Amino acid sequence: MLDMAAKVLHRELTGDPPALPPQRALFGAGPANVDPRVSRALAAPLVGHLDPYFLQVMDETMAMLRQVFRTTNHHTIPMSATGSGGLETILLNLLEPGDECVVGVIGFFGQRLAEMSARAGATVRVVEAALGEVIAPERFEAELQKKPAKLVALVHAETSTGAWQPVPEVAEIAHRHGALIAIDCVTSLGGVPVEIDQWGIDAAGSCSQKCIGSPPGLSPVTFGPRALAAVRRRRAKPTTWYFDLNALFQYWGESDGPRERAFHHTAPVASIYALREALRLVLEEGLEARWARHGAAHERFADGLQRLGLELFTPATHRLPQLNVIRIPKGVDDATVRRRLLERGIEIAGGFGPLKGMIWRVGLMGYNATPERVDLLLGALAEALKH
Amino acid sequence: MLDMAAKVLHRELTGDPPALPPQRALFGAGPANVDPRVSRALAAPLVGHLDPYFLQVMDETMAMLRQVFRTTNHHTIPMSATGSGGLETILLNLLEPGDECVVGVIGFFGQRLAEMSARAGATVRVVEAALGEVIAPERFEAELQKKPAKLVALVHAETSTGAWQPVPEVAEIAHRHGALIAIDCVTSLGGVPVEIDQWGIDAAGSCSQKCIGSPPGLSPVTFGPRALAAVRRRRAKPTTWYFDLNALFQYWGESDGPRERAFHHTAPVASIYALREALRLVLEEGLEARWARHGAAHERFADGLQRLGLELFTPATHRLPQLNVIRIPKGVDDATVRRRLLERGIEIAGGFGPLKGMIWRVGLMGYNATPERVDLLLGALAEALKH
Repeated sequence: MLDMAAKVLHRELTGDPPALPPQRALFGAGPANVDPRVSRALAAPLVGHLDPYFLQVMDETMAMLRQVFRTTNHHTIPMSATGSGGLETILLNLLEPGDECVVGVIGFFGQRLAEMSARAGATVRVVEAALGEVIAPERFEAELQKKPAKLVALVHAETSTGAWQPVPEVAEIAHRHGALIAIDCVTSLGGVPVEIDQWGIDAAGSCSQKCIGSPPGLSPVTFGPRALAAVRRRRAKPTTWYFDLNALFQYWGESDGPRERAFHHTAPVASIYALREALRLVLEEGLEARWARHGAAHERFADGLQRLGLELFTPATHRLPQLNVIRIPKGVDDATVRRRLLERGIEIAGGFGPLKGMIWRVGLMGYNATPERVDLLLGALAEALKH
Repeated sequence: MLDMAAKVLHRELTGDPPALPPQRALFGAGPANVDPRVSRALAAPLVGHLDPYFLQVMDETMAMLRQVFRTTNHHTIPMSATGSGGLETILLNLLEPGDECVVGVIGFFGQRLAEMSARAGATVRVVEAALGEVIAPERFEAELQKKPAKLVALVHAETSTGAWQPVPEVAEIAHRHGALIAIDCVTSLGGVPVEIDQWGIDAAGSCSQKCIGSPPGLSPVTFGPRALAAVRRRRAKPTTWYFDLNALFQYWGESDGPRERAFHHTAPVASIYALREALRLVLEEGLEARWARHGAAHERFADGLQRLGLELFTPATHRLPQLNVIRIPKGVDDATVRRRLLERGIEIAGGFGPLKGMIWRVGLMGYNATPERVDLLLGALAEALKH
């Protein structure tokens, strides 16, 4: 009887929404569209999470992630969670109750780092800049001079404002004051230079669905020797079991070469196939070429915006190429324009928090950072504004 | 220059392993093979995580999950993590430092619940049974009489031993003593009855890749009114931001009907497409029919094992149909047999911890719970033992 009812409800449900999603050009803040090779990889035959073939896939994925992060850190893996899960991994493993943490906040995603650090039990001191601006590195110096900290955490590419925070100088300052440095490179990785080893970054977390070009669901992270030493010196286990680095590396491997793999959790096999294929595409193209392509797409888009009489919100000195933040002109309604675009199958993102209704956020990421896609978007934007 | 080196390394890497995975019949403890409709859903065009189409998909997925869990709980969603992430969600949200928690342990996955509860800061008291056995409900009664607890947590289907723990009696006892009850139904959901409302379960967590028939990567959870009240009565926020239920339901929605959706994290769109398609398949078949199919596959397999002279490890009184645990006969080498099977493209799982080398664990889950798949496996097992 119950099953009969379930079937009726099911029929009602499955009438709407249709099983096949609409075609969308994804110019929001991510996910971006993916290369057809990545879609095919998602649908490849499943194997077990301890299958010899899959263990090779894991090693290959780690090796390619190291290249993309520009690091020799062995401890470089995709966490089985979306981007924020990777950042939580960093903060819950590096911080313990009572630790001092300095967090750079230039928007929503910096606030998220501060919130996660506080939940890890740390005493959080925030260094802020106005929305759209970035933080002068010497501000971190001043904060650390007042009182040392265990960790400095900040966002490299702030997705809520399109601002591109200088990081190498902050890393140098943090180390000079005996602090570790961790960065959120969710929106930067694959689109602009992220140089983990050259900059001396101790821990970094990113995502699969923006400039890397895979669907959302994984969070690449990397940990250097100083960060690992801090994890091993912990007084107590982290409150998280799922994101516990020590346990995770019993599965992913503490070193290269033959080793026993201990089960931790069942890896998301299909998502890792897709990430591997996306990383292959990144490395076939070459990182420098990919950064240049994102830069060129931005230039073309910025020129087009000027012709349309639209202004970018983020100052040119620290404007991200892969996330273009446009000031909504006076008299133009945010929701109307975005609805018109969506009717043509085009997604762009709005602002949130204090920037809601004031800005649009336009991602030109991965598969979408090409002249053809930029022109498609500019054409549709011109139409949507004309109405 | 760096990119040239990267390309060379990339070529070396991509020579091995091949991009296309081998074909495997997945008779391990999960992931199981998935229906071709599910693979196709994975590769469907991506939309944004706030796209009106995707919001409908979320509602539809919640509605179908409620049917599969047999609950009217509004708060029923797939967590963006594998099965253990869902269980961590339950324990980190329901427990606070100093809370009393009674955990039933009949194997590895019960120990995991105890470990997670301890990390949440709870004082954990364990009620145990020998491996292969289940816990008599009155043991929980005795423990709660000694001292009350906020939560009783236990595993419904213990994946390390194939034991099927009676749950309704434990739920009744827990409630009589003023405790909440949470269950791990990772291996049971979709394969044997799980009756959240009828049994009075306050919180439950499962996975996508076993009897539900989707790839690994998501963890369906459900929370009833008593559990939600406990979450809302918390003295402090949970240490986890990623698994914070209050924030998650601002995105998934605190109630049905029109509402504002607040961004929390970027949902794994493709994985949710796949789960939705898997849930459609479950409800098209009907839950009772699906349970019966898992039962029939087990009967056919058990008969075949008897003809091969193999014995089941788990006593018949509480033997799971979807996870058959076989005693490895004297003189037969665990690794040799599993390697021979894998050479024919067939995966079964070994034991772990104290059961390593003593048992095989054979999943007949979802797509693989059919007479044809059982016969394929029995034929290959006969060959592998003959050598």
